[in-house]
Amino acid sequence: MDSLKQRRTIRKYQSKDIPADLLNDLLESACRASTVGNMQTYSVIVTRDAERKKRLAPAHFHQPMVESAPVVFTFCIDLRRFSQWCRQRKAEPGYGNFEWFVTGAIDTLLVAQTFCVAAEERGLGICYLGTTTYNPDQIVDVLELPELVFPLATVTVGWPDENPPQVDRLPLEAIVHEEVYHDYAPADIDRLYAYKESLPENHQFIAENGKETLAQVFTDVRYTKKDAEAMSKVLWETMKKQGF
Amino acid sequence: MDSLKQRRTIRKYQSKDIPADLLNDLLESACRASTVGNMQTYSVIVTRDAERKKRLAPAHFHQPMVESAPVVFTFCIDLRRFSQWCRQRKAEPGYGNFEWFVTGAIDTLLVAQTFCVAAEERGLGICYLGTTTYNPDQIVDVLELPELVFPLATVTVGWPDENPPQVDRLPLEAIVHEEVYHDYAPADIDRLYAYKESLPENHQFIAENGKETLAQVFTDVRYTKKDAEAMSKVLWETMKKQGF
Repeated sequence: MDSLKQRRTIRKYQSKDIPADLLNDLLESACRASTVGNMQTYSVIVTRDAERKKRLAPAHFHQPMVESAPVVFTFCIDLRRFSQWCRQRKAEPGYGNFEWFVTGAIDTLLVAQTFCVAAEERGLGICYLGTTTYNPDQIVDVLELPELVFPLATVTVGWPDENPPQVDRLPLEAIVHEEVYHDYAPADIDRLYAYKESLPENHQFIAENGKETLAQVFTDVRYTKKDAEAMSKVLWETMKKQGF
Repeated sequence: MDSLKQRRTIRKYQSKDIPADLLNDLLESACRASTVGNMQTYSVIVTRDAERKKRLAPAHFHQPMVESAPVVFTFCIDLRRFSQWCRQRKAEPGYGNFEWFVTGAIDTLLVAQTFCVAAEERGLGICYLGTTTYNPDQIVDVLELPELVFPLATVTVGWPDENPPQVDRLPLEAIVHEEVYHDYAPADIDRLYAYKESLPENHQFIAENGKETLAQVFTDVRYTKKDAEAMSKVLWETMKKQGF
């Protein structure tokens, strides 16, 4: 499992395809992930068709991986299949609500991440696209997702055509709390973010964006409050439109 | 990676403790999971203290694993640490909204599941407790979670003291959709659920609950609409209370 510690996201792929047998094997492993009540409240949409990838691209702000990866996976919350089964079995399902949106999200992400770990173990490279929760309405349209199905995570997959350096992570003491949450004193924050702030690539990042601090690159450029509030609205409305 | 396919949830643990070094090693691996903008919007609360486990137990409907596992992990969405860093760096964070609740949930669950895969690879047994999203308000209290921190997934971990049979899963064709979502015809549902419905343990489950179909055990007993609606309200209110 040393591969887990060595992992890095891959955004450039060889043009070589991925055998369907290998993908099925990875998906079989993924579906062994824990699932609430063994209900498997997820579906996976597999996009290989160039035309369909082209239609997906705008929803992902034209990140090149969508069109350059041989396969794009969209992991969706799915309470529809289970609800249909209930209705065919004289049972009245009650899964169109916020609780099951969140519970379904947990199921879905456990499968998505197990798939990714298995794929990387077999030498494939993966990239999660955070854009899925920015433009879920567009993805619903392109992938023809019906009621009680919601797109949550998109993963592009292919044979690596790059070997990027591993990016930094916060020290473990920043993440782990013993027994109860221990709030951070200003000096803790300074210490925990010191390494990240010392990195030459982050100094460059600040300069390129004409900002004073690395944090400002996040709040003013990459992930602004204004964008988040607009996306919250779309996310909420799409969740409602999909019947949750 | 055959271990992924052989995995099963473990609910009974030996009394043997787990070395802190091993847990740290697993957490280091887990934190290598993909994370949006390398922001690591999660925290992990580690519960070892018997008294604290006892206080957590009611929130998890007294499932025995909470008190019998040597260690209980609560994986939390955390936009607090990042926001504090922003404020200390002349940057105004905008992460107290629904978009970042969902984005933080994705980050959190990728770490949780990577941790579980790594733990199982090292011979540990794990169990996810779905109850975390049922009673988040109680967990917030017991673990003293401040604003912008939200408990999403609880995992009990220990050395296995049982070897249960592997449970069924739906066939892959129930989960995977090529290019677009293909809705299920009634005959599809019958075929895809046939194996599950044929299992002796599920026949017993129907009989024990005095129901006519397996689906009714879910809708009328295990996961009712009434409960889900009440839990949706608590989940929503707790999310708001925590500042999202």
